[in-house]
Amino acid sequence: MDKVNLKEKLSLFDAHWTPKIVGELNGQYVKLAKLQGEFVWHDHKAEDEMFMVIQGTMTLQFRDREIVLHEGEFCIVPRGVEHKPVAENEVHVMLFEPKATLHTGSVQSDKTVTEQEWI
Amino acid sequence: MDKVNLKEKLSLFDAHWTPKIVGELNGQYVKLAKLQGEFVWHDHKAEDEMFMVIQGTMTLQFRDREIVLHEGEFCIVPRGVEHKPVAENEVHVMLFEPKATLHTGSVQSDKTVTEQEWI
Repeated sequence: MDKVNLKEKLSLFDAHWTPKIVGELNGQYVKLAKLQGEFVWHDHKAEDEMFMVIQGTMTLQFRDREIVLHEGEFCIVPRGVEHKPVAENEVHVMLFEPKATLHTGSVQSDKTVTEQEWI
Repeated sequence: MDKVNLKEKLSLFDAHWTPKIVGELNGQYVKLAKLQGEFVWHDHKAEDEMFMVIQGTMTLQFRDREIVLHEGEFCIVPRGVEHKPVAENEVHVMLFEPKATLHTGSVQSDKTVTEQEWI
């Protein structure tokens, strides 16, 4: 058990769309990711997912609307809801999701990363 | 589904040691709390608990050491580990814990709040 400093952990990687695990509790992972550009449309059949912005701005696109998230804001995407993360400029986010969650959900894409890495 | 702005939610209450629910995912609650002073020693028998500092500084005391958390830092207290949150000055924190968690764990205290309130 030790503390985690978000900025320190974020300084350890540069790649976009590759969430890194920084904590685990009650079967959930806490992850950090850097996003820039457009992700793929996907959903998670059995898992809710939380996006919290640490630095920058991102948009969560849904089929019927979009939500813009700034630093200090979060959104919980319920299971089964299709979404597409988009970030014009680089954004740093914290994610909460069950350990079993693949970041592209039920969609296989060239962005899909199946090995989850702790930092 | 909507976004949550942490500072906005934190402006809605002043009371210390009364966590408010601001989100729910996968059987877990996201809570915000303002802490000042000393809490009671307690543990949670079956639940891990995450403390993340949004503003200010706090200390998590354990029986064998302590961890000081500043803004942008978090600590996950594993189930069964006795801890006592302490904050000399007011600190704003985000908590993650299972919906069933009582904030004083298995200890009943005059600080125990059994009704959990959404804001």
